[in-house]
Amino acid sequence: MKDISLYVGIGAGIFTAVSLLPQLVKIIKTKKSEDISFFMLFILLAGVACWIWYGFLKQDYPIIVKNLFSLLVNMLIIVFSLLYKKK
Amino acid sequence: MKDISLYVGIGAGIFTAVSLLPQLVKIIKTKKSEDISFFMLFILLAGVACWIWYGFLKQDYPIIVKNLFSLLVNMLIIVFSLLYKKK
Repeated sequence: MKDISLYVGIGAGIFTAVSLLPQLVKIIKTKKSEDISFFMLFILLAGVACWIWYGFLKQDYPIIVKNLFSLLVNMLIIVFSLLYKKK
Repeated sequence: MKDISLYVGIGAGIFTAVSLLPQLVKIIKTKKSEDISFFMLFILLAGVACWIWYGFLKQDYPIIVKNLFSLLVNMLIIVFSLLYKKK
């Protein structure tokens, strides 16, 4: 049972960490971001930052690495969204 | 140290779980979803489903509840995005 949960946990972590990547690619390709909620991006940023803090407190390096990656993609989405935001 | 990490973990969980809510509200309000990546929503759906599976394997109820909430909001975003998708 332990083996299955390890793999399911790794899969869950990878899926949630990379999920923002296609959104980043789409924004860069279409140069459009109006329909994306900034509020969502900032709440997610706060959540991911808390997970990194949690990872440091627990010295859990997979949590730190996974969430640093999400933090980076999230910040890039915010930067490109601002760049392409309709004036 | 244990107390801090408990609260940081709860905060992280709540932030990431509710982060999709403003996106759902925005789609319902504007009736527009073209700029949102469906690929992102489906990868996130797979990730959240894996977390729920992981929660059951580990009998970790906070993980199950948090991710069931994310699953529901994610599915509602997909439903409304499809409804309002430009033909």
